[in-house]
Amino acid sequence: MDISRSLLGCCLVLAFAAQISLARQLSVQAHANDLVWSHDHWFKLSFNTKAYCLGWMKNVEANNIKNWDLIPLNCYSTVKKYMEQGQYWVDLSVAGDAAWTYLSTFKADGHDAVMFDIDETLLSTLEYQRDISVYGTTLFNSTAFDSYVAQGISPAIKSSLALYNKLKDAGFKLVICTGRKEQLRAVTEKNLQAEGYTDYTELVLKTEEYNGLTAAVYKSMARAKLVKEKGYVFRTCVGDQFSDCAGDAKGEDTFKFPNPMYYIK
Amino acid sequence: MDISRSLLGCCLVLAFAAQISLARQLSVQAHANDLVWSHDHWFKLSFNTKAYCLGWMKNVEANNIKNWDLIPLNCYSTVKKYMEQGQYWVDLSVAGDAAWTYLSTFKADGHDAVMFDIDETLLSTLEYQRDISVYGTTLFNSTAFDSYVAQGISPAIKSSLALYNKLKDAGFKLVICTGRKEQLRAVTEKNLQAEGYTDYTELVLKTEEYNGLTAAVYKSMARAKLVKEKGYVFRTCVGDQFSDCAGDAKGEDTFKFPNPMYYIK
Repeated sequence: MDISRSLLGCCLVLAFAAQISLARQLSVQAHANDLVWSHDHWFKLSFNTKAYCLGWMKNVEANNIKNWDLIPLNCYSTVKKYMEQGQYWVDLSVAGDAAWTYLSTFKADGHDAVMFDIDETLLSTLEYQRDISVYGTTLFNSTAFDSYVAQGISPAIKSSLALYNKLKDAGFKLVICTGRKEQLRAVTEKNLQAEGYTDYTELVLKTEEYNGLTAAVYKSMARAKLVKEKGYVFRTCVGDQFSDCAGDAKGEDTFKFPNPMYYIK
Repeated sequence: MDISRSLLGCCLVLAFAAQISLARQLSVQAHANDLVWSHDHWFKLSFNTKAYCLGWMKNVEANNIKNWDLIPLNCYSTVKKYMEQGQYWVDLSVAGDAAWTYLSTFKADGHDAVMFDIDETLLSTLEYQRDISVYGTTLFNSTAFDSYVAQGISPAIKSSLALYNKLKDAGFKLVICTGRKEQLRAVTEKNLQAEGYTDYTELVLKTEEYNGLTAAVYKSMARAKLVKEKGYVFRTCVGDQFSDCAGDAKGEDTFKFPNPMYYIK
């Protein structure tokens, strides 16, 4: 009696184990099929607008898609949602944290410097982008942009302000270099100060000597000049455009903040 | 009677227009508030795991987050979904298209070459990543990886195969350079051929002379050697790691395919 009960128990345990094993096997098979499905049907998904637009946005940040004038027009609502529903701020915040992770390894000795771009890096022009650029679906209008800048109402990107303050406390020299025109210096300074960006050591705006040059060339020349004339040692460069941090004296590692709305050479 | 009816009609039209205008104004106000909300609450969103993980993944592709060993463990389900539910293949497809957009501007003259990495670039090891690496939540195990490679079962990434074939037709030399070991040459060749990657002119695997070097140094040296000894002119380099395409002779523009599962120096 005891033996038969033990045998029954043993059989039940074995049956249960076999059932688990079978279920696991089936689950792995189903899982493998999912992978195959996804793979064989990538082309199907590429015709799904939202999936394509998310792919487009990711490839912009990876610097695979370059020299574009407008966002793909059918991506308007995906870009708008990205900008307005919070993921944009999260991505900026993670980017800022990554820059701090890198820079916190340096012991700033008085020469160590970081270069920051302004628009979409320290300050947000999102209101302009929404109302005038319509999230990258209309061509850049420098008159309208300058009018917007002249109002001095761009809010700080809070995660960038946090990064800026940590670098200030750590003894880095903070250099700001923007594509905004020299004529907009006073309002730009006022806007930066009002938003908490104080104690920077340089604010470089685009003077006439740089007219006709790309942002990449202008910013590279500006950094090289500061290195030569003032002894700055740039440890990194932070901008929302690849052109912010190309060329000379940009540091070993640079940081690209997200921006799916416009591309500046 | 006619005049009063006309006046009534006119009033109705004006009232309707005013209503539209008011609705529009309110909608713009609501819209502006949304922006402010998103902005002031970015920190709230940064505590949302999915939003953080999407931000982490995007910042990996922007080369802001470097030198990581494991994905953030709480991002496992976000990475798994990304890999399995199709967005990964779409992002790869958009990246492949971007590479073709760039390369189609060259007129290949017999020396023009493109360097491709293998794993997660031409072939997918997704089955290994799912079952053994568990999407980047376990440390790299070279024995297990070599056993997987030795099976020769990695499927082609279809969008990469399409790019590869277009480049072949356009007269580019196709050079393949992988971190896989020289001992795995036969099975790697068989796998590549079976998946449609034919007519490449070089297949460079990691020989003992490169032991102890990072992938970035090994691949840069391999390209420089091919340029010097065989006269290749690399127009671009395509890989899923930044180390695939760093250093010498990589071409003017390189392409980074998505990979949120592992990072190779």
